[in-house]
Amino acid sequence: MATKRGLKIATIGGGSSYTPEIVEGFIKRYDELPVKDLYLVDIEEGKWKLDIVGALAQRMVEEAGVDMKIHLTLDRREAIKDADFVTTQFRVGLLDARIRDEKIPLRYNCIGQETTGAGGLAKALRTIPVILDICKDIEELAPDAWLINFTNPSGIITETINKHTNVKSIGLCNVPVLMHMISADILGVDRNDVRMDLVGLNHLVWGRDVIYKGESKIDEVIERTLSGNIETVKNVANIPWGDDLLKSLGMLPCPYHRYYYLTDNMLQEEIEAAKTKGTRGEVVKKVEAELFELYKDPNLKVKPKQLEQRGGQYYSDAACNLISSIYNDKGDIHYLNVKNNGTVDCLPDDSAIERTCYVDKEGAHPLNVKPLPSKVKGLLQVVNEYESLAVEAGVYGDYDAALQALVIHPLVESSIAKPLLDDIIKENLDYLPQFKAVVESGRVK
Amino acid sequence: MATKRGLKIATIGGGSSYTPEIVEGFIKRYDELPVKDLYLVDIEEGKWKLDIVGALAQRMVEEAGVDMKIHLTLDRREAIKDADFVTTQFRVGLLDARIRDEKIPLRYNCIGQETTGAGGLAKALRTIPVILDICKDIEELAPDAWLINFTNPSGIITETINKHTNVKSIGLCNVPVLMHMISADILGVDRNDVRMDLVGLNHLVWGRDVIYKGESKIDEVIERTLSGNIETVKNVANIPWGDDLLKSLGMLPCPYHRYYYLTDNMLQEEIEAAKTKGTRGEVVKKVEAELFELYKDPNLKVKPKQLEQRGGQYYSDAACNLISSIYNDKGDIHYLNVKNNGTVDCLPDDSAIERTCYVDKEGAHPLNVKPLPSKVKGLLQVVNEYESLAVEAGVYGDYDAALQALVIHPLVESSIAKPLLDDIIKENLDYLPQFKAVVESGRVK
Amino acid sequence: MATKRGLKIATIGGGSSYTPEIVEGFIKRYDELPVKDLYLVDIEEGKWKLDIVGALAQRMVEEAGVDMKIHLTLDRREAIKDADFVTTQFRVGLLDARIRDEKIPLRYNCIGQETTGAGGLAKALRTIPVILDICKDIEELAPDAWLINFTNPSGIITETINKHTNVKSIGLCNVPVLMHMISADILGVDRNDVRMDLVGLNHLVWGRDVIYKGESKIDEVIERTLSGNIETVKNVANIPWGDDLLKSLGMLPCPYHRYYYLTDNMLQEEIEAAKTKGTRGEVVKKVEAELFELYKDPNLKVKPKQLEQRGGQYYSDAACNLISSIYNDKGDIHYLNVKNNGTVDCLPDDSAIERTCYVDKEGAHPLNVKPLPSKVKGLLQVVNEYESLAVEAGVYGDYDAALQALVIHPLVESSIAKPLLDDIIKENLDYLPQFKAVVESGRVK
Amino acid sequence: MATKRGLKIATIGGGSSYTPEIVEGFIKRYDELPVKDLYLVDIEEGKWKLDIVGALAQRMVEEAGVDMKIHLTLDRREAIKDADFVTTQFRVGLLDARIRDEKIPLRYNCIGQETTGAGGLAKALRTIPVILDICKDIEELAPDAWLINFTNPSGIITETINKHTNVKSIGLCNVPVLMHMISADILGVDRNDVRMDLVGLNHLVWGRDVIYKGESKIDEVIERTLSGNIETVKNVANIPWGDDLLKSLGMLPCPYHRYYYLTDNMLQEEIEAAKTKGTRGEVVKKVEAELFELYKDPNLKVKPKQLEQRGGQYYSDAACNLISSIYNDKGDIHYLNVKNNGTVDCLPDDSAIERTCYVDKEGAHPLNVKPLPSKVKGLLQVVNEYESLAVEAGVYGDYDAALQALVIHPLVESSIAKPLLDDIIKENLDYLPQFKAVVESGRVK
Repeated sequence: MATKRGLKIATIGGGSSYTPEIVEGFIKRYDELPVKDLYLVDIEEGKWKLDIVGALAQRMVEEAGVDMKIHLTLDRREAIKDADFVTTQFRVGLLDARIRDEKIPLRYNCIGQETTGAGGLAKALRTIPVILDICKDIEELAPDAWLINFTNPSGIITETINKHTNVKSIGLCNVPVLMHMISADILGVDRNDVRMDLVGLNHLVWGRDVIYKGESKIDEVIERTLSGNIETVKNVANIPWGDDLLKSLGMLPCPYHRYYYLTDNMLQEEIEAAKTKGTRGEVVKKVEAELFELYKDPNLKVKPKQLEQRGGQYYSDAACNLISSIYNDKGDIHYLNVKNNGTVDCLPDDSAIERTCYVDKEGAHPLNVKPLPSKVKGLLQVVNEYESLAVEAGVYGDYDAALQALVIHPLVESSIAKPLLDDIIKENLDYLPQFKAVVESGRVK
Repeated sequence: MATKRGLKIATIGGGSSYTPEIVEGFIKRYDELPVKDLYLVDIEEGKWKLDIVGALAQRMVEEAGVDMKIHLTLDRREAIKDADFVTTQFRVGLLDARIRDEKIPLRYNCIGQETTGAGGLAKALRTIPVILDICKDIEELAPDAWLINFTNPSGIITETINKHTNVKSIGLCNVPVLMHMISADILGVDRNDVRMDLVGLNHLVWGRDVIYKGESKIDEVIERTLSGNIETVKNVANIPWGDDLLKSLGMLPCPYHRYYYLTDNMLQEEIEAAKTKGTRGEVVKKVEAELFELYKDPNLKVKPKQLEQRGGQYYSDAACNLISSIYNDKGDIHYLNVKNNGTVDCLPDDSAIERTCYVDKEGAHPLNVKPLPSKVKGLLQVVNEYESLAVEAGVYGDYDAALQALVIHPLVESSIAKPLLDDIIKENLDYLPQFKAVVESGRVK
Repeated sequence: MATKRGLKIATIGGGSSYTPEIVEGFIKRYDELPVKDLYLVDIEEGKWKLDIVGALAQRMVEEAGVDMKIHLTLDRREAIKDADFVTTQFRVGLLDARIRDEKIPLRYNCIGQETTGAGGLAKALRTIPVILDICKDIEELAPDAWLINFTNPSGIITETINKHTNVKSIGLCNVPVLMHMISADILGVDRNDVRMDLVGLNHLVWGRDVIYKGESKIDEVIERTLSGNIETVKNVANIPWGDDLLKSLGMLPCPYHRYYYLTDNMLQEEIEAAKTKGTRGEVVKKVEAELFELYKDPNLKVKPKQLEQRGGQYYSDAACNLISSIYNDKGDIHYLNVKNNGTVDCLPDDSAIERTCYVDKEGAHPLNVKPLPSKVKGLLQVVNEYESLAVEAGVYGDYDAALQALVIHPLVESSIAKPLLDDIIKENLDYLPQFKAVVESGRVK
Repeated sequence: MATKRGLKIATIGGGSSYTPEIVEGFIKRYDELPVKDLYLVDIEEGKWKLDIVGALAQRMVEEAGVDMKIHLTLDRREAIKDADFVTTQFRVGLLDARIRDEKIPLRYNCIGQETTGAGGLAKALRTIPVILDICKDIEELAPDAWLINFTNPSGIITETINKHTNVKSIGLCNVPVLMHMISADILGVDRNDVRMDLVGLNHLVWGRDVIYKGESKIDEVIERTLSGNIETVKNVANIPWGDDLLKSLGMLPCPYHRYYYLTDNMLQEEIEAAKTKGTRGEVVKKVEAELFELYKDPNLKVKPKQLEQRGGQYYSDAACNLISSIYNDKGDIHYLNVKNNGTVDCLPDDSAIERTCYVDKEGAHPLNVKPLPSKVKGLLQVVNEYESLAVEAGVYGDYDAALQALVIHPLVESSIAKPLLDDIIKENLDYLPQFKAVVESGRVK
């Protein structure tokens, strides 16, 4: 990595409404992380957003008075060439695709969510061809670059990259960051004095322990979680866990565990929401429209407060922290999606896990995990194999793998797997080049 | 094992309606398997059945003219003392308990089945204390005896015995035997020329291949299974698999897989049946009553045809075959529940698996299994961890383990886990000594 | 496999002095194993031997009156085309190479043996390019054929085939067969009533148990081995084990274990023998010359008694037994070299192990192995990794792998690894095409 | 751990000549690591040394003006009670035992070394009963204390503690620290900017990489190691590795690897040294005598320079660093002996490995290790199983385990295992209470 010259960073999906957060992150850290060139890349359909958000980024940089050049481009290869870091925050098919991911399963009385369950499979199938394409560019144009992936489903995407490319990559999610923050807040202590012993898959991660200055505080955090009414991520309804569930678990579930542990309640909530305020995607679509209106304001020169309503808060901050730890060889702790490689002994070596990691210039070193109990192992393993099938389906356009992915998924009743999959394929066909042959064969009804 | 004197066999639950089948099995094999003493043991409540079925057994032996002594007893220790083989076919709580296992889950719109899902957990919790008791007797009175276990849930019971006793034990089920027979029949070939490459857990076992004279016939068997309307076990509704499911699986599921692969259809069928003809347990109760009427007939001197309607056919035949293979050091192939010990590499060593085994006088040697694909692994692993939690719950009366067992079970929606578990415990309390303390603590609502 | 027409078998290295044994084996089993065409293949240098032994084979077949056609050919592809079984018994570089394998290490005061230690590495390096060539022919011309490999070092060759070709292959050795026979003889019982629980690597295999009619007899066999003076294989000096060694082991070592357990004694014996009667290779060379003189006798129409002095007795018989078990789907027990695939849990899945196997038309199924104790594991693992390095060195001509193979080998003192390896390469260069580039680079001194 | 009050530390073997180094370490770090009570414990035979070194420690503390109380005691339980950390640096049988460990193997023309090979086994057998005794005290009197073990053989002792006690323990060695320092010096860079990717067993540890500011420098370090003449540890003769060995290894061996990679050279050097200057133990005995003379000087108030000739330099510094990292929850990198727990996938979970670790208040978290190549795995595994047998032998007085430990050890020719072991037992019998019964049985000749 070039340490003499300033850093070049390419952000794929640069027209995203999140961009002001990452720009703010780079500005704040400019002294330790001198980003000289920030390339915001998008595709033709996203150009109008790129123009708006890019102009805001430009104003933010000027206001801060840092020497960072903002480049707006539709030429991904130009952006990637010789980059030190590539970050991804694109969404194939935009929010309309997300809304479909939510609504198609609901037709079958099945959880509709953009990352978990059938919706997550749809999103994975759309995203995999694009991420493989990006990786080809990185392999050719910036083989030493780190790919910091925010794009969901983050675990499946990380696993795809690890299994099918030579790109050095780390997956990132704001969920563990939020779990960390909330735990510290529950304990009423400084967030910097806390570390979580966190393990699982992306959006299926358990906090085995919350360590405050070396002392285990998990029991206290669980106790207070039960008595309080803790806000978590914006994307997931905040239904209470119930005393017995949480105590018999003895760990802190992540917000997305509600889909697994409180399935019916979550489904009812989704159905109700869909009828009234709209699905989460529909809500976000409105929030986004408002954000872009805000962003257009030429007097706006900082990240607006309202972005925090968007749902992915702290994502970009986590990314900037990670990039800085690598760049500065910091040797500190992050929660990341990485290749398992024996860390969790009941999962295959080449699976992507989410884990407390030690990070230095070489990248992320997951900390060793003690054997997991059955209550965690079973769920972890079945979802992990679902993810493995999703990767196979996404990379090869393998219909059988996609079908079996839904068949074994705990949130999909098997009888509906086939019609549900067929709807997903048919309604996303523009984004599923790998499934064209299957569709032509007539297998998709 | 005594090879000079004749064999002593103790059958726990000897008053069962199945007994005539096992007696017939011993009679047929008398030349190679000289059973001199057959002890039929039962408990006080089952004495009337033991008397009826014991008298029939006596008539069968006389009719056959073999030198086998039938002993009827309520003294289990007398029966076990110095036995060469102990077989178990008891049902804790009798058919009324089974009917509860079916009906309690149905209240929650959840599959109600005596071995699979919540009903299976209930049955496991009732059975574990009794089997541990029996094993203590065997350890003391017949430490070299083989325990051949038919009692369901056979996998969980085998795992309990392996983890918590020193008894040499093998679990047995008629499902693989039926899969073998049906496959041979589908192919139109002699059943003796067929061997299945079968792997999984009890009632969750896949036929990876059907080998006819060394040739793989799995594709042909699947093809014909799809086009035909194959009868399988009596206990499971015969709903068609669907082409896509079976082809994408590429293996032969066992009949009980319908609960996992066709959940809603099976549930609807159960609900309908419960309303009309009664649950399977209720049907069986009638069949049993009729059987015992038949058995009373002093002119009946052979196993009556009608027993085949009962559901567990070939069970006893499989047991006699297994006993003979061990006794005669035959070195032939059986499908058995044994300790995994590395056979299936994605499951713990101490889990009980169901697998094609080579059997000789030393017992059952499971044949090595090639790595399983994700579509099988995921489901296998989660159900296996459910079983592991069921063992823990059953042995220690661990409420948290029982709750988490239901929480991770693919057939139980997690939101209902707690009330469902509480109903199970409350309505089975007479048979759950290990849960008394939990109930007294007030945790069970 | 063709079951209607008769079998075609190709024997590579058909000019070997062992050939009369395999021919006798096929003649004896003609009723159950109708070999119609036996192709004996050799290379130009071996033509004179092929002519002599081929003529004897022809006379043996005529004498026996069976309808088996003997084909003598130098065209390997003709022999392999559509064969049902291919057997290999060739020796690259003939006995002169073996004598070098014995003598080069002795220069360094190091065990010189054709399969174990540095000599075995030399033999592996010579043999691997040839076996890969043969496998290419099989893949093209007889993809369904079974390759039954006798060529030493049998474990390394089996591992090479499994790792680098698609050929269905089983490795065979007479050592376990002899251990079985000797154990039965020690017990004074019928060899057919005995089965060994045997596990390890080729020429490093332990008898964990000797089972006679289902009863463990290992203690008795060890006891009598210590008190008696048991003859084993011809190739290995019969030095006594010592009471403490054998009792603390608690298993039956194979004769080749003497190189590991009695290293110095064996080395002294070798040095002495080399000075007086010659190395084993030199002795065998004389025996072979005498055998071929015998074979020339036109009145000789059966396998001559003297062949038993040759050293590899029962090899061919074991091969014929194995071929018949596969062909007839027998379902019986053999001791074979197969892919580990989780059987021995402390070795990699793709290593070749030697193990008690169940054999049917699908091939060899190794029986599950209980966890091995440290005393066995450590030695097993280091020799297994030596073998893995030998495969790498042999396939890729990787000098570093070859050097490290000797460095970690328990029988090679590391200081001499480099000069010893360099001597091996220089003196075998005609047979090591894969090492030409390394030699040209000047690394070999 | 008490964070309010000052720390209490108990040093077992406090009369050691190393003690001034650890005292200096605590003085230097007093601000961050306020050791209020340092208990130096020794046994009756070591009282004269404890008095001398204790008085020096007292003068050092006074000279430094820190508020640390030095307690000299023969009462181990008083010292351990409520300690925060217990460090061990005792030597059972003193230097005379070490000299025997060196000389007994030499009689058999076998490497004689206090930690590696037969000498190491002897030391392990003497040390294990004592460490188990100490651990019983810790379990009772200071269950939350960390045991920081310097006592050799450090890996075997750590494994013993982990397998047979509940004490929280970390093993420490100066070898990795020296490898780190030397690598930094070779590169000419600041030692704080370097981190090693180090993995193996104690005294059998490989540097897979040397990372300087995130860049891999292993090739450069190897290159310069070959061209230079690098001093390493005092205890091991500095014989050059040879180009081919080191390049084919591609990693940095530890100094003790010379016993494995250059066995004969090391043996010749030992034999020569024994004849001329004496064994290492004899040399150290003289150095120690001189040191204690020095220590007596009432004007000496700091650690004398001459201690650096002693051999174990940086040991105590490493220990103070480790203690401070735990106490202050530092989250930095150390090289430590810890339970494997899946870190190295080819070793059992309960083995002790030496590995780059992340250390915080919870203790040591070994960083995940990528699969090791065969050249390392084989040697690692056989030595690890030797260690496992040594633990078994030491804990249970198991003669067979001890014999097999030597039989499989790469540095012990198996033929001499029994007489060598018998000599070890007979000549150490005063320190081997666990072997009394075996000796009485007459098995030891």
